Amino acid sequence: MKKNKISALEAKEKALELSLAPLMFQGARALFELGILDFLKKMGDEGASQDLMAQKLGLSPYVLEVLLEAGLGMGLVEFKEDRVILTKTGYFFATDPMVKVNMDFSHYVCYLPSYSFLESLINGKPEGLRTFGNWETIYEGLWSLPETVLEKWLAFDHFYSDASFNEASEILLQKRPKKILDIGGNTGKWAIHYAQKDPEAEITILDLPGAVEEAEKRIDDAGLSHRINCMKMNILDKDQPLPKDYDWIWMSQFLDCFGEEEISLILDKVHKSLDQNGYMSILEPCWDQQKFKAASYCLQAVSLYFTCLANGKSKFYSSRKWHKMIKNAGFQIVEEIFPLGLGHTLFICTKQKD
Amino acid sequence: MKKNKISALEAKEKALELSLAPLMFQGARALFELGILDFLKKMGDEGASQDLMAQKLGLSPYVLEVLLEAGLGMGLVEFKEDRVILTKTGYFFATDPMVKVNMDFSHYVCYLPSYSFLESLINGKPEGLRTFGNWETIYEGLWSLPETVLEKWLAFDHFYSDASFNEASEILLQKRPKKILDIGGNTGKWAIHYAQKDPEAEITILDLPGAVEEAEKRIDDAGLSHRINCMKMNILDKDQPLPKDYDWIWMSQFLDCFGEEEISLILDKVHKSLDQNGYMSILEPCWDQQKFKAASYCLQAVSLYFTCLANGKSKFYSSRKWHKMIKNAGFQIVEEIFPLGLGHTLFICTKQKD
Repeated sequence: MKKNKISALEAKEKALELSLAPLMFQGARALFELGILDFLKKMGDEGASQDLMAQKLGLSPYVLEVLLEAGLGMGLVEFKEDRVILTKTGYFFATDPMVKVNMDFSHYVCYLPSYSFLESLINGKPEGLRTFGNWETIYEGLWSLPETVLEKWLAFDHFYSDASFNEASEILLQKRPKKILDIGGNTGKWAIHYAQKDPEAEITILDLPGAVEEAEKRIDDAGLSHRINCMKMNILDKDQPLPKDYDWIWMSQFLDCFGEEEISLILDKVHKSLDQNGYMSILEPCWDQQKFKAASYCLQAVSLYFTCLANGKSKFYSSRKWHKMIKNAGFQIVEEIFPLGLGHTLFICTKQKD
Repeated sequence: MKKNKISALEAKEKALELSLAPLMFQGARALFELGILDFLKKMGDEGASQDLMAQKLGLSPYVLEVLLEAGLGMGLVEFKEDRVILTKTGYFFATDPMVKVNMDFSHYVCYLPSYSFLESLINGKPEGLRTFGNWETIYEGLWSLPETVLEKWLAFDHFYSDASFNEASEILLQKRPKKILDIGGNTGKWAIHYAQKDPEAEITILDLPGAVEEAEKRIDDAGLSHRINCMKMNILDKDQPLPKDYDWIWMSQFLDCFGEEEISLILDKVHKSLDQNGYMSILEPCWDQQKFKAASYCLQAVSLYFTCLANGKSKFYSSRKWHKMIKNAGFQIVEEIFPLGLGHTLFICTKQKD
């Protein structure tokens, strides 16, 4: 094997940690949910004794002991004589909103389904989805998910996309396209946001019936029905061409919901519908462009959610792969903007000029 | 918080890794189960291209891509141009038998039940056990667990205890007690092993009916029924005293199945049954005595299994806690031997002399 920087002992430690990671995840989550990490944060460098914690938090000595010892193993806390002190890792685990949104997504949305991860890979289907319902993909069943699952799914989705679509909107505003086709516009969150920024923009949201019905309500509430309309379509239906005469076709965190062959089909439809002077943009997070290892890690991990729960065949692709897919579909990238929001890339493309 | 050695960036990385650990665990497991890590091990420092791996392993490009990128995030593999190379961590994950036994235990035994970990803590009951059956503790239902679950449970149990009980037996052989009471003797594995080593030893196994019935079969098969007998008893039944006239009361990885109050009750019963010249020994792994951090980590993690699946109230205790519990029960430690096997401690005790 390749000689890399960590020692054999550290490597063995990491391998063993991984082998018991699910139990430890649940331990970390309990340390968070029972307020133990937050209490220790308030106690600062002095920390607290387990007796004090039992008293203040109303937890049994057993609960504290089993959790704090697990926390010691994970490096969330340290023991100093009879006191327990929060570590830096514990501090981030207690306070970082990205940790919280990931943890909830891991637990409520992915945990039980990912038991069927290997089966999903082998069958090429999101077998874990059966935990929640009898659908082919999560997109079909999204609005029928159990309430908490849906809530955590949306929180996760919006956490990662909100920041980036705000910034991507600023870029689009400079281009000021008049007619925008928002493919995979979902609940209309971006379309409403953008229509409020550009009072002249006209937007068409194209998505599956469930999402479109949700979007229509929100557009109506926002008083934007005269400038945002919706179109129900299964984008993978080869017989249904995309509508024409749009200046800009916008796909934000949409194509990662599809396998490569499907993306090829979608880009082909976009190519057929787009004018020679039109633009297509793709907003996606690419693990191979991230500045921080942890950001790549999150994308690589969440890709596994697509396998076992979303559709069995998609993932977050690398920028290298996007370059290839965009080129193969007859487009050229005229601008590539990174980073937007929490590390997204905006690929702005036109048809290849002959 | 305490200033410790890792940087804020590393701490944040660790916190984020933890937040998505269950998905990554499943990714690592798939890399193992589909033979990808093993294949890369054979390819050595040169590694292999994804094309070659697809061809040799019969896996789709998607399966390889999503798994190898997750493996990159976990540090199991590295990418070098178009080749994928196993790292040291990947090597240990692929080859270490302890990793395999932990991974199987994590997946087959603990994964689904530990979804109810927080609930188990709050209710003081192993709520995760409902995944498999309607029992108060796993010990009641052990022999009725689904076949694969039981197989992985036993493999885990024996992996950790076999090495240590062999070595502990050598120590006992030097003492040569004639009559041994093996409390929590389970399937009789240790008793049979020991009776074969010492042809004069007479052993009584005391355990719950399910285990004893299993033990009786094995003792019979080993032709040792004349020297090993069994006694069915719920050790927690206050009205049933322990039998008397034993030279040695042996408890190997038994007391960790109980909460502190229960241990106090059991040790009290042992105290009442033991002669003034008799010995009691306790064989347990103590997380605070391990030489390697990874060994402590494993014990701290497996403690969480006791919470959500075994009984809701026990764990692997520290040596510090054993000292306290042993003393409080009226015993004194005459010898403390560490490490045995994979890091167990043998506490040899007598009644406190006035």
